[in-house]
Amino acid sequence: MSYLILSINAGSSSLKTTLFLEEEKDGEKKLSRLASAELSAINQPPAKLKYVRGSYKNTSELGDIKDHKGAFEHILHAFLNDSEIPQASNKEDIHYACHRVVHGGDFEEDQLITRETFDKINKLSDLAPLHNASAVSLMIACHEHLPKVTNVACFDSGFHHTIPAPAKTYMIDQKIAKEKGLRKYGFHGLSYKYIIRTVADYLGKPQAETSIIALHLGSGASGCAIKNGESVDTTMGLTPVSGLPGGTRTGDIDPSLVFHYTSEASALSPNSTKDLHISTAEEILNKQSGWKAIAGTTDFSKIADPNAPDTHKLAFDIFIDRIVGYVGNYFVKLDGKVDALVFAGGIGEKSAYLREVVTHKVSCLGFTLDDDKNKKAADGGDVVNIGTSDKMRTLVVETDEDLEMARNVATHPGRFSGKLTVSY
Amino acid sequence: MSYLILSINAGSSSLKTTLFLEEEKDGEKKLSRLASAELSAINQPPAKLKYVRGSYKNTSELGDIKDHKGAFEHILHAFLNDSEIPQASNKEDIHYACHRVVHGGDFEEDQLITRETFDKINKLSDLAPLHNASAVSLMIACHEHLPKVTNVACFDSGFHHTIPAPAKTYMIDQKIAKEKGLRKYGFHGLSYKYIIRTVADYLGKPQAETSIIALHLGSGASGCAIKNGESVDTTMGLTPVSGLPGGTRTGDIDPSLVFHYTSEASALSPNSTKDLHISTAEEILNKQSGWKAIAGTTDFSKIADPNAPDTHKLAFDIFIDRIVGYVGNYFVKLDGKVDALVFAGGIGEKSAYLREVVTHKVSCLGFTLDDDKNKKAADGGDVVNIGTSDKMRTLVVETDEDLEMARNVATHPGRFSGKLTVSY
Repeated sequence: MSYLILSINAGSSSLKTTLFLEEEKDGEKKLSRLASAELSAINQPPAKLKYVRGSYKNTSELGDIKDHKGAFEHILHAFLNDSEIPQASNKEDIHYACHRVVHGGDFEEDQLITRETFDKINKLSDLAPLHNASAVSLMIACHEHLPKVTNVACFDSGFHHTIPAPAKTYMIDQKIAKEKGLRKYGFHGLSYKYIIRTVADYLGKPQAETSIIALHLGSGASGCAIKNGESVDTTMGLTPVSGLPGGTRTGDIDPSLVFHYTSEASALSPNSTKDLHISTAEEILNKQSGWKAIAGTTDFSKIADPNAPDTHKLAFDIFIDRIVGYVGNYFVKLDGKVDALVFAGGIGEKSAYLREVVTHKVSCLGFTLDDDKNKKAADGGDVVNIGTSDKMRTLVVETDEDLEMARNVATHPGRFSGKLTVSY
Repeated sequence: MSYLILSINAGSSSLKTTLFLEEEKDGEKKLSRLASAELSAINQPPAKLKYVRGSYKNTSELGDIKDHKGAFEHILHAFLNDSEIPQASNKEDIHYACHRVVHGGDFEEDQLITRETFDKINKLSDLAPLHNASAVSLMIACHEHLPKVTNVACFDSGFHHTIPAPAKTYMIDQKIAKEKGLRKYGFHGLSYKYIIRTVADYLGKPQAETSIIALHLGSGASGCAIKNGESVDTTMGLTPVSGLPGGTRTGDIDPSLVFHYTSEASALSPNSTKDLHISTAEEILNKQSGWKAIAGTTDFSKIADPNAPDTHKLAFDIFIDRIVGYVGNYFVKLDGKVDALVFAGGIGEKSAYLREVVTHKVSCLGFTLDDDKNKKAADGGDVVNIGTSDKMRTLVVETDEDLEMARNVATHPGRFSGKLTVSY
């Protein structure tokens, strides 16, 4: 038996979609990536397309993409018309579509998207207007273009359902908190699930005995304390704006700051639509802050440069200050029993300079760095050890949310419980 | 030569005032406390008065105190009419009045209160409407009742002026940040100044070589990383609402939370006055949250009880979770070179149970606890060692902001540079 799985991963102005082939033979399953397409700058035409199939890579610009629905239609058309992917020749060939949903509210596990779950997810857009809306629009697009596909929602918050009450409860009126769902949810969970499994495999330990401090660092950045395989704390909270700063996000700030920043904090932002209500404050906190506000760029490679101008250096130093603070915090949350400090995400995987500065600053906790291995980490495999210790390791992990979603579908209880191999 | 110094320490609904005698003889100065009066529940009559002179202690209730000005007039009258304090028989006997000012903005050092500095301090009430207003009203009361006194403003934020830019800068638009003064200031600085001097003396080390993690825990709570005598980070920020939660404060929360809590976040709170503009959000974050919101009490002794009900336990566990996180964070900020973990403030000094739980949770960093010494700490002196190590110590320090202010006046450069002894 074989199935095609489409992993759909929407950012606020991007769409990454990967097509996987799932094959079952002799009680073993194999998952292979057929092709991957990423459209970025969707809201600022021309959109940029990156298309990858095996060793074939192509980039192009597309002037006629205006929204996530248009982006999805374009990518679907590209997959179905790529003669090198004979398995996907028409819409009926695709069996599963996995949708990455940032805010899953109280959902702990992946959900089959039915009318009922769709309504629940749609309602969560109130809590995360800037984050869930594109995923919802893609569920609708899938329903329209692939009416026979089984849609699955994979939540970025799900992995964090194990966070204990003291860490996930805010010190606010609990009646209002429960009524409105105001607690820490945490995000980047698909990435953390991928990371903890991969690291446990690498260490040859059961996941349930593996404890790490994981840093998923990209233009959205977070950290997670994983104790015996489970999330016990993470930096993001009710929404992704808290915790570490990002490309355009403030991260943790004084909760009363935005009222001193603007007298219009509660007013609707001009970017609101009929269905999507965004306050001026949320717009400032999520879109007009972060290193873009300090250094004038969201391109971290320009910031993580020892010879960068002072504004860039300040943005870098603030990011480092917050990261190392959380590493210290999570070392305590893990009672000092840490198998590895893990760098992942675009910045975590690419910036040897960031890894060097962070690891140096947390060396008092016992983490180590081999300069040479650190600089060559990009040439390594899925997991690269850049430390000098064989106890508390310093690792770089190439994380993969799309694969994590496809894997969740391929190994879903009831569908399969055997051994899964992955080939790229 | 001898002088009388009045230390005036106003909380939002309390006023503590201590009268000190400064005597200079043979090139040495001596500072002694003559009497201390504390009025609490000023806004909820009857106000409660605690009066202490040497071994004499008296408590009473006063129905006719309505505001800080009235409280000050009452206390001043009590001092001047106490026949056991012959040094203070009329208003002219008082030479200095030190005013604790929570938010000092860019002021790094104590300031003589002139028309100009008064206007600047008054203007800072915009940043800290809930915190500076009472101090300002007391400066006016002093000016009226003690026209010949030299008034000095002592800032809670001053000690933190050494915090490096990366730690004190928020990742927001820096043009707006500079224009509106939006950065981390930090508070409890008078307490931290007292603590670091006292700990350095206790260790027999120069202050400039002493590094500690200090926790000032009360219904307002904060932590501070002090490196070689200087503040390098603290938990409170632009205002005291960020960082650790408190009796009625949220501490760090998702910066967008309050917009989900209420749709009226920006609206003026009903407690605003013509001069004092407080938003509904600031009222919620500062006055309607903290352990009062979780456990229904601001009395921490009821919360820090292993046999307390679940709501109390949750409030306690949240407080502990945030405290130990910051201890880990600051351990890293100090490169692991920490002379002592210091507990101070009402809760830090009184709750052996809190100290036990915190120290146990941060034992992975090297901090230790002697159960017996911990339980008997209240019977000790100004500094009590409750740990078992003579390297990284665990200390309880009885902090004293009023004495710190009087000391600042007595040892002000130009007035005196010799040895000061303090007697109680």
